[in-house]
Amino acid sequence: MIRSAIFDGPHLPLRVEASDRPALRPGEALVRVSLCTVCGSDLHTFLGRRKEKTPCVLGHEPVGVVEEVAGEVLAVGGEPVRVGDRVVWSVAVSCGACFFCTHGLPQKCESLRKYGHEPVTPQCGPLGGLSTHCHLLGGTAIVKVPANLPDGVAAPAGCATATVAAMLRAAGKNLSPPPFPDDGESGSCVVLGLGMLGLTACAWAEALGITAIACDVSDARLAQAARFGARHLAKPDALADLVKSVTHGRGADTALELSGAPEAARVSLEVLRVGGTAVWAGAVFPTDPVPVLPEQVIRRCLTVTGVHNYAPPDLDAAVQFLAANHVRFPFAELVAKSFPLADVNGAFRFAEAERPVRVAVVCD
Amino acid sequence: MIRSAIFDGPHLPLRVEASDRPALRPGEALVRVSLCTVCGSDLHTFLGRRKEKTPCVLGHEPVGVVEEVAGEVLAVGGEPVRVGDRVVWSVAVSCGACFFCTHGLPQKCESLRKYGHEPVTPQCGPLGGLSTHCHLLGGTAIVKVPANLPDGVAAPAGCATATVAAMLRAAGKNLSPPPFPDDGESGSCVVLGLGMLGLTACAWAEALGITAIACDVSDARLAQAARFGARHLAKPDALADLVKSVTHGRGADTALELSGAPEAARVSLEVLRVGGTAVWAGAVFPTDPVPVLPEQVIRRCLTVTGVHNYAPPDLDAAVQFLAANHVRFPFAELVAKSFPLADVNGAFRFAEAERPVRVAVVCD
Repeated sequence: MIRSAIFDGPHLPLRVEASDRPALRPGEALVRVSLCTVCGSDLHTFLGRRKEKTPCVLGHEPVGVVEEVAGEVLAVGGEPVRVGDRVVWSVAVSCGACFFCTHGLPQKCESLRKYGHEPVTPQCGPLGGLSTHCHLLGGTAIVKVPANLPDGVAAPAGCATATVAAMLRAAGKNLSPPPFPDDGESGSCVVLGLGMLGLTACAWAEALGITAIACDVSDARLAQAARFGARHLAKPDALADLVKSVTHGRGADTALELSGAPEAARVSLEVLRVGGTAVWAGAVFPTDPVPVLPEQVIRRCLTVTGVHNYAPPDLDAAVQFLAANHVRFPFAELVAKSFPLADVNGAFRFAEAERPVRVAVVCD
Repeated sequence: MIRSAIFDGPHLPLRVEASDRPALRPGEALVRVSLCTVCGSDLHTFLGRRKEKTPCVLGHEPVGVVEEVAGEVLAVGGEPVRVGDRVVWSVAVSCGACFFCTHGLPQKCESLRKYGHEPVTPQCGPLGGLSTHCHLLGGTAIVKVPANLPDGVAAPAGCATATVAAMLRAAGKNLSPPPFPDDGESGSCVVLGLGMLGLTACAWAEALGITAIACDVSDARLAQAARFGARHLAKPDALADLVKSVTHGRGADTALELSGAPEAARVSLEVLRVGGTAVWAGAVFPTDPVPVLPEQVIRRCLTVTGVHNYAPPDLDAAVQFLAANHVRFPFAELVAKSFPLADVNGAFRFAEAERPVRVAVVCD
């Protein structure tokens, strides 16, 4: 028996409804969802700040165990996916053949579907993580989860962690830690906004030997960033001076904008060194424009690049990173509270009231 | 005997003055300048829109013949530079050892000097192209000029053409033409602003099999762009519709901003496809800011990158490109008129009055 939390529209209580097991087509799988973390964008949808076609099953940070496989289903590395494998999977379902799929942007596939963002149809099982089961379609990137990685730590891999991987890749960072001590000049990275992605970015930078300079309006989040490897901490008004001092006046190599605030996007350029790169991923909603001075971009040889979602290798990198680093950095503490699927509305109420980094819904 | 045109300040007539031959140190060379084209930024300096320390020798698009070499001097490819070689050289003199020199930005060297931008000193021969001779310091990128390339076509390699090479490199374009016919999907490139750089960019795109869509306010320049390989032409107000039609609604892969107008910089983002790259190089002077919407940059996975000057391999690519393509595209017509060094003021007056793409000063 499958049970899913159905979202009918902003502020309406989610309904936990039963449905039949879907008939799988070759290349598809059915996963028994263990746990799904609630991403900030799920909360935005619930609160009416984003629009989804309804009814739909929200949740795109699930982890689960494969219960059924039809035909051949391969994980990102090429290994077969088998019944019993514990897995995470991509937000995006991509065709693999269109212009964007063949140009490095499968998350912008011309026939894209996204878990947690699709209306319920009778042709298909649940396509969201807030469900006892999720129907994995062909074109989903699947990554096996190492046994040492707890469900609550593995779940955000499929959205937050993989997006950070894509941002570091966009900034030209090699995602493997250096194999030997380098000359001590591994660079600096300003992280603006210390939610799930910002904290993950601090930890990933530290694991790569990059000096993270963390910035947020919240003292609590700054303190948390220190536990996630940030070497330097600043409120927004103190950031420019801190970056100058840490980088001996040169400016930062990289700035990751994760707050969504246009002012932070502007600052992300200001703090860069000549030749530096700002990666923006925070503002996935309309904001005021950012005033950018072309002469500054040109004379300082700056790069700004936007990252939205990620490609399959980023999901693989995310799982490997979490497996190697979730003990060193306290990823487990990011899930403030867990709720059973039957109390999914409690999870959203808690998320809205307390604004924790993550809340989890236990689905099995 | 060396004679150089000395610039004393905005609107003051250049003085042609004699000086002694410099004593070369090992790794230096003295070049007999054949011809130097006057770049837009020379004119801006002459008209007081840019500031240089004076007195100085302007001109950074020279071509000449090596007259003397001290010790070992190597060209960009590693070949020794010898007396009698016809050469062009970089604007930048870089130390090769500082942070920027070792991080791909020798044009931002911490002890940078630039030909055509240095005050005259008794320690050194002329460091500008508007002179019978130019003193090439160690750390100058030197490229030999093939015999088939006329002086007037080769001269802009050291500024305009190499900058276009750097822009195409920043856009991720392989600068060698495809070795075999591809699938017909070699991409599209919007070129905004059809001066020396814009016309060169159209020709280079065409040589690479990339569809150039050229945009300018001037009908004459649009007509010229067609002779330089642009496949599609638009005035600014017609550009968005043209790009849509040419790219079947998807948007352009690349947009090169060379006009310097903030509105063109804004448009350079608007015309891109999802995952596209805008390269800005036009606004090397203060302008109004460009309003950039972070959500657009993020959801459309856009990249904006600023290019200022170039690295030595770009100069090499520029000379190779001109050698291979200056007959196919009418590069020779870009020099509207030539003046002898003795009438260098005539050259600047003509450039100011007529605004040709280039005017040349014949120095030998």
